Amino acid sequence: MPRRNPGPRSTPKGKFVYFFGGGRAEGHGGMKDLLGGKGAGLAEMTNAGLPVPPGFTIATSACRHFFENGNRVSSGIDRQMLEAVERLEKASGLELGSKTRPLLVSVRSGAKFSMPGMMDTILNLGLKDETLAALAERSRNPRFAQDCYRRFIQMFGNIVLGIKKEEFDAIFVAVKEETGARIDTDLTAEALAEVVRRYKKLVQERSGEPFPQDPHQQLRLARDAVFRSWNNPRAKTYRRMHKISEALGTAVNVQMMVFGNLGENSATGVGFTRNPSTGAKEFYGEFLVNAQGEDVVAGIRTPLPVAELERPMPGVYRQLRTIAQRLERHYRDMQDFEYTIQDGRLYMLQTRTGKRTGRAALKIAYDMVKEKLIKPRQAVLRVEPAQLEQLLHPIIDDSQPLQVIAKGLPASPGAAVGRVVFTADEAAARGRSEPVILVRAETVPDDIHGMDAAAGILTARGGMTSHAAVVARGMGKCCVAGCEAVRIQEGERLFSVDATTVREGDWISLDGSTGRVILGRAKTISPDPASGEFAEFMRWADRERRLGVRANADIPRDAQVARRNGAEGIGLCRTEHMFFAEERLPHVQAMILADTEAKRREALAKLLPMQREDFKGLFRAMDALPVTIRLLDPPLHEFLPRRENLLVEVERLKAAGKARELEEKRRLLERVEQLHEFNPMLGHRGCRLGITYPEITEMQARAIFEAACEVAAEGVKVLPEVMIPLVGHVREFSLQRELVEKVAGQVFAEKKFKVRYLVGTMIELPRAAVTADEIAAEAEFFSFGTNDLTQTTFGFSRDDTGRIIREYERLGIFSDDPFQVLDAAGVGKLVQMGTELGRRARPGLKVGICGEHGGDPASVEFCHRIGLDYVSCSPYRVPVARLAAAHAAIKERLGLEEKTAGTA
Amino acid sequence: MPRRNPGPRSTPKGKFVYFFGGGRAEGHGGMKDLLGGKGAGLAEMTNAGLPVPPGFTIATSACRHFFENGNRVSSGIDRQMLEAVERLEKASGLELGSKTRPLLVSVRSGAKFSMPGMMDTILNLGLKDETLAALAERSRNPRFAQDCYRRFIQMFGNIVLGIKKEEFDAIFVAVKEETGARIDTDLTAEALAEVVRRYKKLVQERSGEPFPQDPHQQLRLARDAVFRSWNNPRAKTYRRMHKISEALGTAVNVQMMVFGNLGENSATGVGFTRNPSTGAKEFYGEFLVNAQGEDVVAGIRTPLPVAELERPMPGVYRQLRTIAQRLERHYRDMQDFEYTIQDGRLYMLQTRTGKRTGRAALKIAYDMVKEKLIKPRQAVLRVEPAQLEQLLHPIIDDSQPLQVIAKGLPASPGAAVGRVVFTADEAAARGRSEPVILVRAETVPDDIHGMDAAAGILTARGGMTSHAAVVARGMGKCCVAGCEAVRIQEGERLFSVDATTVREGDWISLDGSTGRVILGRAKTISPDPASGEFAEFMRWADRERRLGVRANADIPRDAQVARRNGAEGIGLCRTEHMFFAEERLPHVQAMILADTEAKRREALAKLLPMQREDFKGLFRAMDALPVTIRLLDPPLHEFLPRRENLLVEVERLKAAGKARELEEKRRLLERVEQLHEFNPMLGHRGCRLGITYPEITEMQARAIFEAACEVAAEGVKVLPEVMIPLVGHVREFSLQRELVEKVAGQVFAEKKFKVRYLVGTMIELPRAAVTADEIAAEAEFFSFGTNDLTQTTFGFSRDDTGRIIREYERLGIFSDDPFQVLDAAGVGKLVQMGTELGRRARPGLKVGICGEHGGDPASVEFCHRIGLDYVSCSPYRVPVARLAAAHAAIKERLGLEEKTAGTA
Repeated sequence: MPRRNPGPRSTPKGKFVYFFGGGRAEGHGGMKDLLGGKGAGLAEMTNAGLPVPPGFTIATSACRHFFENGNRVSSGIDRQMLEAVERLEKASGLELGSKTRPLLVSVRSGAKFSMPGMMDTILNLGLKDETLAALAERSRNPRFAQDCYRRFIQMFGNIVLGIKKEEFDAIFVAVKEETGARIDTDLTAEALAEVVRRYKKLVQERSGEPFPQDPHQQLRLARDAVFRSWNNPRAKTYRRMHKISEALGTAVNVQMMVFGNLGENSATGVGFTRNPSTGAKEFYGEFLVNAQGEDVVAGIRTPLPVAELERPMPGVYRQLRTIAQRLERHYRDMQDFEYTIQDGRLYMLQTRTGKRTGRAALKIAYDMVKEKLIKPRQAVLRVEPAQLEQLLHPIIDDSQPLQVIAKGLPASPGAAVGRVVFTADEAAARGRSEPVILVRAETVPDDIHGMDAAAGILTARGGMTSHAAVVARGMGKCCVAGCEAVRIQEGERLFSVDATTVREGDWISLDGSTGRVILGRAKTISPDPASGEFAEFMRWADRERRLGVRANADIPRDAQVARRNGAEGIGLCRTEHMFFAEERLPHVQAMILADTEAKRREALAKLLPMQREDFKGLFRAMDALPVTIRLLDPPLHEFLPRRENLLVEVERLKAAGKARELEEKRRLLERVEQLHEFNPMLGHRGCRLGITYPEITEMQARAIFEAACEVAAEGVKVLPEVMIPLVGHVREFSLQRELVEKVAGQVFAEKKFKVRYLVGTMIELPRAAVTADEIAAEAEFFSFGTNDLTQTTFGFSRDDTGRIIREYERLGIFSDDPFQVLDAAGVGKLVQMGTELGRRARPGLKVGICGEHGGDPASVEFCHRIGLDYVSCSPYRVPVARLAAAHAAIKERLGLEEKTAGTA
Repeated sequence: MPRRNPGPRSTPKGKFVYFFGGGRAEGHGGMKDLLGGKGAGLAEMTNAGLPVPPGFTIATSACRHFFENGNRVSSGIDRQMLEAVERLEKASGLELGSKTRPLLVSVRSGAKFSMPGMMDTILNLGLKDETLAALAERSRNPRFAQDCYRRFIQMFGNIVLGIKKEEFDAIFVAVKEETGARIDTDLTAEALAEVVRRYKKLVQERSGEPFPQDPHQQLRLARDAVFRSWNNPRAKTYRRMHKISEALGTAVNVQMMVFGNLGENSATGVGFTRNPSTGAKEFYGEFLVNAQGEDVVAGIRTPLPVAELERPMPGVYRQLRTIAQRLERHYRDMQDFEYTIQDGRLYMLQTRTGKRTGRAALKIAYDMVKEKLIKPRQAVLRVEPAQLEQLLHPIIDDSQPLQVIAKGLPASPGAAVGRVVFTADEAAARGRSEPVILVRAETVPDDIHGMDAAAGILTARGGMTSHAAVVARGMGKCCVAGCEAVRIQEGERLFSVDATTVREGDWISLDGSTGRVILGRAKTISPDPASGEFAEFMRWADRERRLGVRANADIPRDAQVARRNGAEGIGLCRTEHMFFAEERLPHVQAMILADTEAKRREALAKLLPMQREDFKGLFRAMDALPVTIRLLDPPLHEFLPRRENLLVEVERLKAAGKARELEEKRRLLERVEQLHEFNPMLGHRGCRLGITYPEITEMQARAIFEAACEVAAEGVKVLPEVMIPLVGHVREFSLQRELVEKVAGQVFAEKKFKVRYLVGTMIELPRAAVTADEIAAEAEFFSFGTNDLTQTTFGFSRDDTGRIIREYERLGIFSDDPFQVLDAAGVGKLVQMGTELGRRARPGLKVGICGEHGGDPASVEFCHRIGLDYVSCSPYRVPVARLAAAHAAIKERLGLEEKTAGTA
């Protein structure tokens, strides 16, 4: 008789299967390339003497061979596997296919890099009609045995034989209906046996063969299916998105099944070596007697705190505590582990570095340094920069029940509780006496005073970099943006979410860290004021970093916060934010509406002393630190009433026959129409304002230098850096610089006093980046405005494309929102090019970034890598940026794998 | 007595002064480096035996030495100059400072590159109190002599002594008032003598010395002033803008003055060797007896045709004809020359290549080839590409009196005469029976049907690349845009310019080549249909060029024009233009307003057959040539009513209490609000539409491939190239390409027929350019959309920044509008980078451009230089691009200096 499958079967040399069990493993933790992450971990635990269920790992080299060999395992590798099965039988005292002591195993994939949920797992392999009874008997639970079997057939049928999950589901639902079972657990052992019968029939029909009753055959087929799953479409997509090489392949882990539900002497549980929520050094975790992992997840029974394990199983409890301590010493980090107790015997199933809150991360890292487990540098790496945010803002107390009615974008972290108001004026009025939440379809610059007065801001539209989001982050104020479920009826002074209606004056709470909108007054937890431990930790971080960290701040109050948070200067003061203040807006509007230069100068003269006072406050707050002041940037019509509103008002006045008011509004409308732009982002703004109306630049320069001279006379050390915005052509810059220098000269002559200052530019247009050599010949510093640079490089208006970007993330086009994580491949390339060209023309040119990205850890790392001098971010994110900069420097020094900023 | 000015005076070796006169010059035409352009030309003419007034050139090397020597001329150079003065006295028979035969000279700057108006000129040098009488006597015109003197004192006082022009003007005005003179020519000799007296007094007061009466001293001072003028601020700015080296320096030309106003035997005139208007081979020009150049310019006397010189001065006339023929043979090009006849003696003052109309340029180039004066390749270079436009459009007949009421931007060339209408609907209705001019504040896509029906378009707002301008050029239709003097009152159906009011139905004429708006019906001249000469000339050009030329065309009619004009394919078919047709818009709107995919598909199904017919027409017209079809690009709200209008309508319906209509409008408004974008240019458009609504891409792909299959079955050779717009990330492209390929496969299967096709992309975002290697790995061709790329690279919305750009041109920030001339330093750098990266990933990648720049000669040259495969422009500009491509190739081959595209 000819052999079946007579295809080419080369027999490669070498070791492909690695056994672990009985206190010794053939592999070890450093062999991730060959054994995959999971396999290496199992070997490591075994070698550490932990009670791990025995098993073996089929190496990634076998997987690669499998593909090269036409999707077949060569006989040599197969033989190595069978030998390992024999060793496993010996170690466990069980036997594959035995009717009395059947060995059941799990078959799991495990690649070098974790690809959660991408590949397949099969449990309870080894079950068949003949071994079923033994399982029922050992568990004294025939229902459990039947349930294991039907799950196994379904997993195997689906993964190995390619039968659709829906076909199994249909059978399951049918049997539930026939037996009147409401939920899965209502099904009796008999009903489940019926499910098993029909599943086997389905397998027979679809595959043309009966469900395999030879466990060795089951194992071979399962192994091959796991290998094949390396190439399933979702795994391939995942690898493409995460830049994981196709050539790596996956390992296969075969391990003895253990059961925590074999009676009162069995249990299952999870544990942490320290408290993952607070970081306290305490043995933490929970368990369920006579249960398996699924029962914990299903939430039908409530697990008990691990301490209570001591009473029923004192020996096991002591053993577990000892193991936990050994694990932590071994890995030198807090561990999260899973265990099962089968018939009084403890098995460790998994251990891994435990996830933790920001608070816990800091506490654990700090304590471990003090315990001399790790060095400060390692401690710095143990806290993710983004986690620090939790320590800097109040948070919603999740231990209380919350009535979450909607979820928007977590636009600015923190928590806020207040009464709902719908207009900025109302917020400003009412916000003085009680906390208010400003709810708007979207905010506009006109709303600033209301945003300032509100405890938190909720908008129905706009993305993570919408006006509301950017301003709120700058203010360190909680904001939930783009919450599209919220339907606002401003006229009726209410908003609704589905059937819930919230009226003006009602209490709501916002969670800016998760985007939750909560009905009523939620309890909040305030952050510890920068504690001694926190400060010491940040000093460790500062020792490591090379990159400077500045803050974006427009007013003295923000500058003080920035300084307290460790900012080394102001990287961006947006002077227009000073223009929106209530008492100034009329003068700003008069300036814009002026039809002659003389009238414009008159209005500007009124603004001059106000701006001067602003700058004096900033300079005082930042004594001896540099202050970068950007000249007026936004389109002028942002300061005027909106065109649509005027159109509507004109119609109303017409209908009401109010001739005089109508005429007035019409004139205003005419000017607004003149200033109207189809694409204001690409219109009359930035240095284009200062070039077409030089008197604006003159006023601002005068305010800066008068303030600098006056404050310097007080003994304060002032370091002003004047920044010309939106330069695209070097000649724009030169013209503005000449003007600034002229005014500086005049002021110094008048004051008989000089201060040193720099004039530089914001690089925020692609043209500026590609002609940065020309610009650097004239400019004394660069600051990359990566918000605008991202807009123009991508052609994405950040006010309009939130929905598109989210769709792009869903489709896998973007892996990150490029307005949050600097797009290294595109925008970053321009930043790098601009920096290199600039420094070629002016060696030692000081270069920073001042977009939203300055506070994003991955982006900070990118800035470090390309050699920028500093990043500038909102005052509240300064510690985040400091820590991210430290991470970048340490990783670079350690030659650790680089975590690149987003590739969108 | 010590020497005055005892500073260091080195005496350099070598020759610094070059004499010309008496039929021989020491220099020649090839010595521009040393003699400057003017000096080399004077030497060349002298050597050619022409009667040139004698003189000498002080070389640029002397200027350089002057600056090195602390702004002083060394004694050696001064000595060379004095020797040259002596030679000049001998040659002229006159003497500097002589009371009887005084030599008067002009002193002019002359650098290697022409810097018109940047440096200084002094005439009549040598005049002083004692020589004045001789001039009065020789001219028998004491008034003229006094006028020469007062002009000389003013020029000298201003240029050499630095006295402000205004101070001289004040004196001049005072004397005019005192003597009751209305205009300058009313001043008598006596009055002018009084002016001279007061001028001299002013000089004495301001300089502390009397006006210099030593002509040699005058000459030295004038020479040094001309040298110094090389460094005046406006000259420095000019050189910076035109990239002329600071190190070159200027020459100084000193030449004997000749006068055409010494009596009836004197005259002055200008001439052309051929007719500069028609190109006819005829002696052409005009003259004035007893006059000087200023009289011609002043327009007080009317010059006579040159032929009439034969009667009074037959000998001189014959001499002039002979000289003209020699000049043309010598320079092998049509010459424009100036001459003066002094006492019956002819002097040639200047000759240069004559400016000419496009018509004349072509005729002269063609004729000179036939006369074997030049080769076809030289003929090709003799016609400026931009001049061809004049040959392709009707023009306004300037020989008739015209009542020009305003001037806008020459947005689309040609002439149009018609009755004024103010709405697109009116234009469409009335345009069927008589010519109409559509007058709008600005046009929007909704107006297309009206623009199509109109003879010409006039807008009050928008720049050279506003909607009106772009669409009009595409249609080859005359358009004057951004005519801000025009104040439209659409409601009243009139527009006004200052006091002039034009009502609906009135006749106006537009000159799209100059931007003139003319009251009434102007006469127009229609172009010769592509004549035999034109066609032969274009064949000469085509023989030279390497760059391909395609056309942007959306409908079969335009495709036919393109093909007739020599287009080698369609580089850009904008499918959205097909969406605006009257009978389609309802379906397009239904598609946009659909709230489910099913409804959207329903609307798309209605559009499918219409699009298919469009494509069939295009494929047929372009048989065997490639047709690049861009998928839907503009933001969807462009197809909907405008938000502001709806807002106003809703208010009106509210006031009128029309509940049902109100509700309907409100719903429409709601959807329009949803689609509203702050910056639509950076919003939901381009491939973002096809990605979020894949069914749109599917419909368009289906229309393309069904059309291709059906037309191919007729025996037409179809070469479709599907272009995905606005790609910023390679994964956007990949998703759309997969969709297009899927549909192609389906259609080919249904039709049982296959056609070859390409799928490529438009590179119109900076991110696409800097990641072009990634994109080229997937895309089969690139087409640079330089309009949008210019917008995003500069951050300039072309709809909004017309005024800013004009201001920038005024300030010297931009030397060209970057939307007209490709900005080589910025946008061009991205185009070059994108091309190089793309071809690195896909060698031989086909790359073109399809922005407005495709028809701009300097931009075409840039495209040639960086090695693009083709440019695509509006059908009417195809010959312009062909000629520009030929110029670029010839210049490259000849190693001629490159004329770079704009550096903005």
